[in-house]
Amino acid sequence: MSQYQPPVLDAKFVLDQLIGFDGLCEKLQLEDINIDLADAVLEEAGKLSSEVFAPLNWDTDQNPAQWADNAVTESPGLKEAYQQFVDNGWSTLTAPEEFGGQNLPQVLGTAVSEMWQASNMAFALCPLLSIGSVEALLAHGSDELKALYLPRLIAGEWTGTMNLTEPGAGSDLAAVSTTATPDGDHYRIKGQKIFITWGDHQMTPNIVHLVLARLPDAPPGVKGISLFIVPKFVLDENGEPGERNDVYPISIEHKLGIHGSPTCTMAFGDNEGAIGYLVGEPHKGLPYMFTMMNHARQGVGVQGLGISDRAYQQAVQYARERVQGKNRDGSKKPIIEYPDVRRMLLTMRSGVEAMRALALEASAALDFAHADNNSKEKYARLELFTPIVKGWMTEFAQELTSLNIQVHGGMGYVEETGAAQHFRDARILPIYEGTTAIQALDLIGRKVLMDGGVALESLLNDMTATATELSASSNADAQAFGAAFAQAVDKARAAKEWLLTNAPSEKELSQAVCFDMLMAMGYLCGGWMQGRTLLAVIALTDANDDVYGEEFLAKKRISAMYYSQCLLPRALHHFGVMVQNPQALYEFAVDQF
Amino acid sequence: MSQYQPPVLDAKFVLDQLIGFDGLCEKLQLEDINIDLADAVLEEAGKLSSEVFAPLNWDTDQNPAQWADNAVTESPGLKEAYQQFVDNGWSTLTAPEEFGGQNLPQVLGTAVSEMWQASNMAFALCPLLSIGSVEALLAHGSDELKALYLPRLIAGEWTGTMNLTEPGAGSDLAAVSTTATPDGDHYRIKGQKIFITWGDHQMTPNIVHLVLARLPDAPPGVKGISLFIVPKFVLDENGEPGERNDVYPISIEHKLGIHGSPTCTMAFGDNEGAIGYLVGEPHKGLPYMFTMMNHARQGVGVQGLGISDRAYQQAVQYARERVQGKNRDGSKKPIIEYPDVRRMLLTMRSGVEAMRALALEASAALDFAHADNNSKEKYARLELFTPIVKGWMTEFAQELTSLNIQVHGGMGYVEETGAAQHFRDARILPIYEGTTAIQALDLIGRKVLMDGGVALESLLNDMTATATELSASSNADAQAFGAAFAQAVDKARAAKEWLLTNAPSEKELSQAVCFDMLMAMGYLCGGWMQGRTLLAVIALTDANDDVYGEEFLAKKRISAMYYSQCLLPRALHHFGVMVQNPQALYEFAVDQF
Repeated sequence: MSQYQPPVLDAKFVLDQLIGFDGLCEKLQLEDINIDLADAVLEEAGKLSSEVFAPLNWDTDQNPAQWADNAVTESPGLKEAYQQFVDNGWSTLTAPEEFGGQNLPQVLGTAVSEMWQASNMAFALCPLLSIGSVEALLAHGSDELKALYLPRLIAGEWTGTMNLTEPGAGSDLAAVSTTATPDGDHYRIKGQKIFITWGDHQMTPNIVHLVLARLPDAPPGVKGISLFIVPKFVLDENGEPGERNDVYPISIEHKLGIHGSPTCTMAFGDNEGAIGYLVGEPHKGLPYMFTMMNHARQGVGVQGLGISDRAYQQAVQYARERVQGKNRDGSKKPIIEYPDVRRMLLTMRSGVEAMRALALEASAALDFAHADNNSKEKYARLELFTPIVKGWMTEFAQELTSLNIQVHGGMGYVEETGAAQHFRDARILPIYEGTTAIQALDLIGRKVLMDGGVALESLLNDMTATATELSASSNADAQAFGAAFAQAVDKARAAKEWLLTNAPSEKELSQAVCFDMLMAMGYLCGGWMQGRTLLAVIALTDANDDVYGEEFLAKKRISAMYYSQCLLPRALHHFGVMVQNPQALYEFAVDQF
Repeated sequence: MSQYQPPVLDAKFVLDQLIGFDGLCEKLQLEDINIDLADAVLEEAGKLSSEVFAPLNWDTDQNPAQWADNAVTESPGLKEAYQQFVDNGWSTLTAPEEFGGQNLPQVLGTAVSEMWQASNMAFALCPLLSIGSVEALLAHGSDELKALYLPRLIAGEWTGTMNLTEPGAGSDLAAVSTTATPDGDHYRIKGQKIFITWGDHQMTPNIVHLVLARLPDAPPGVKGISLFIVPKFVLDENGEPGERNDVYPISIEHKLGIHGSPTCTMAFGDNEGAIGYLVGEPHKGLPYMFTMMNHARQGVGVQGLGISDRAYQQAVQYARERVQGKNRDGSKKPIIEYPDVRRMLLTMRSGVEAMRALALEASAALDFAHADNNSKEKYARLELFTPIVKGWMTEFAQELTSLNIQVHGGMGYVEETGAAQHFRDARILPIYEGTTAIQALDLIGRKVLMDGGVALESLLNDMTATATELSASSNADAQAFGAAFAQAVDKARAAKEWLLTNAPSEKELSQAVCFDMLMAMGYLCGGWMQGRTLLAVIALTDANDDVYGEEFLAKKRISAMYYSQCLLPRALHHFGVMVQNPQALYEFAVDQF
């Protein structure tokens, strides 16, 4: 296993130089928060992640969560690690002060989350999902529910889960069949949910399940789904966990990866019916879920970033140590000196840096929207980013974690090396929290076609401004980057126009081309962030910066140039396939496969 | 687990329509062999693979080979399956009659091998490696060694292994340190070999290890490596397995996949020294290995093909059964009807068909070379194909087996579905038998730069002829394909010229761009085969063919067009990245990672 190096300075660079963290805090009226505090927070998170979570990662894989007698016991060591996480207040980071939170900007929470995900993804899923429960209750819960549940969830005393999927209802939530029957001041929930992440464990005295179910009078389809809160232990009159509720994990999955994360089949109400409480209004469950989706989906994108960085770090370490062949002077040659190994490492590094910058830009879009009273324009930018962050970053993570195995050669295929674990763990990312196809459809349908391309055009205009700034620079690298990037943005604009023209008249077109559009937009957004990185690097260098140092800036410059030379062309490729609108796809009949 | 459908008609189509199997047999002076016999052979292989090997695949994964007391016991069921394989004469298929073989063309052996690999890759590795031993002995063994070992290896009574890698000698065989000391009429071998596939098992009464080792007077580096044969049991005066030789498996690896294939660390001579016999002349071990490489490396490429087809078949079956959402009339909708699912399936199908055609074309290149007395030109074509088949097809297999998981959604991440096994198994393919980098360096260095691009130009000329034929057709699909393909071939020619011009003066250039060239050539070759498929389909359709049938030909046509629209553009992308020669790659210093 390799040591995890938390990217403290890299995250600070993005926050400070690309996001404008201090300006954001000002807009959010957070007078006491600034980049120095953020830096200190990152430093502390880096310690916990590298010293406590990361060393447990391999053990967690080899000693998966265990199920017996309708209960799950988590992997050894996680309970103690979780307690440290809670004791140090990490679960409260971005939550509102009213319920015990620290009210820090989301973007800082995202920078910190990357470290949890990189150091132990299977474990970090648990607090990630708790945040989802917090958000749902914050946005839609009654004052009573909020008072009962939020302080404990935010403090991390209890954890939260999301119960959406059923055997017949995966990507299609219209098919949800779990029922909720009124029974006095509460409801009785009956039904089975599958693929429930961290559905049970022994780390906390209670678990709060958020569950989609149908009321007796519910209309069919997505308009008849309501959201309920179902605690593992029903709260007593003092708000403490009391009687065991009728909700049990009845099995856990044997999965390719994230072995430390118990994936449960949850039986609600197999006996007397699980006691549940309605969150918000009846039949609004699906729109309520959508309010959480930006955070949850971006969170999974950040998992893709984290695990890619971990894989990169491991690959570099191995490539330095592993010797093959000799130099002309007879000295042994570490494989890192071979150009094709450097190509793999630089693809990983440059890709990770682009992903990190995009993840923080997209997360900050939520803060900027909040600061602007959720103005339509600011919120649209956030919404546009979400499927790109989730879809592209998790797909890209497949390639980058695979490259780590490749750098290791035969050793990468041996489980004990640990490279295979990152590869296995990463494979869930383009599936859960909405598959890549769901992200791509969301991007093309709800985020582009629905507003006639306005939000996308606004983003492309910002990109053009960056391209112009690059091209106008006296720096030759900036000019070269600007020219390549301007070409990519032009291609994006043409693809957008093509889509707006053709999608309305061709029924299946947007579904057929959505994947390529998603990937193209991902590489384009990554290019935008790398272009802005380059501009910041040039400005800092010109100003004789001594915060980041010459070496740091030199590396950022080359990484950005590598992106423009080797990764940005992928955007052009995907836009090209997209606007070609492959006719063969429509011609091949379903029964011909 | 899905049922495996052996691609009998598809393989016959390629053999008959693209390779010209009957003409090849004529050239090889095999009067009794023709496409009808090939068809019958494929049919029989299809039965064994689908009825015996395929059903064992999942069990083999879940019940890996076991090591204890310096011996390996293979997964349950494999011994019986192997016996059926041997009893039906499959190990003798392409071997020379002189030693009990059936002397069938290599290309037919390859078409059959695809079925073994697809149905049970971990198991099929064992006979694949035996063929390597047979080839080495055939080409370089003394008459005595041939007489003693070949009939038993060819009959499958014994199996063969290849012992190259050592802890410090992986891609760099110059570092081989195992020693061979003369001792009467034989040698004593001492040293440790790692990653030895099927290094031990109980399926046969003997195992024949081919081992690279150094003689006492050996020059350093690759020019001092000799090839030895080291039987597990030393043969007695009757040529039967006698005393146990001093070669033992001392551990097996815990791997990401191919659990059914024991990957052994082999200790040679820990006690009295393992008895070995020199194959051929001293110090010629490495060139001898190279004579086997075309077969072994193409064989691994065929594994990529086989496992991709298996993954495709499983994805189709699931996509038909899995229902999500509804049609407008309220009927339930199988996910195969969604365009993005069809995109994934068609990518797999079209990719698999291109790979199969290329694998057979490349394998037939060996037959055509044999038929032409190994003429320089014919042999150069074979040699050019080998790294492309191995490198591109195994890399492509990563994407295609991953798509199978994606089609399955959450179920794909659950091990019992079996999709994850194909994905895990496939991950070894770009590593063993020479990593992708080794293939790419071989392609660009030994196969292109070394002959000044002559062999490549010859291939490109053949491709141009195909493009011209397509463009000259009255069929609109052919015209469109021809235009796209001609553009790709032009780009290849330009890349070749660029390479020949720049590589000699830039020390690291060919290493820096070799991966992109390999991938570009792979997609281009796939396009060539799909273009020739389209031409054959049009000709057969015009001739009212009734061998393959209208439906078969219609599917082939669309698959070819999909390739030209969605996969061929990848060749352009990779050539584009290649000739851009990313300067950033050279600038990023080793210690900056």
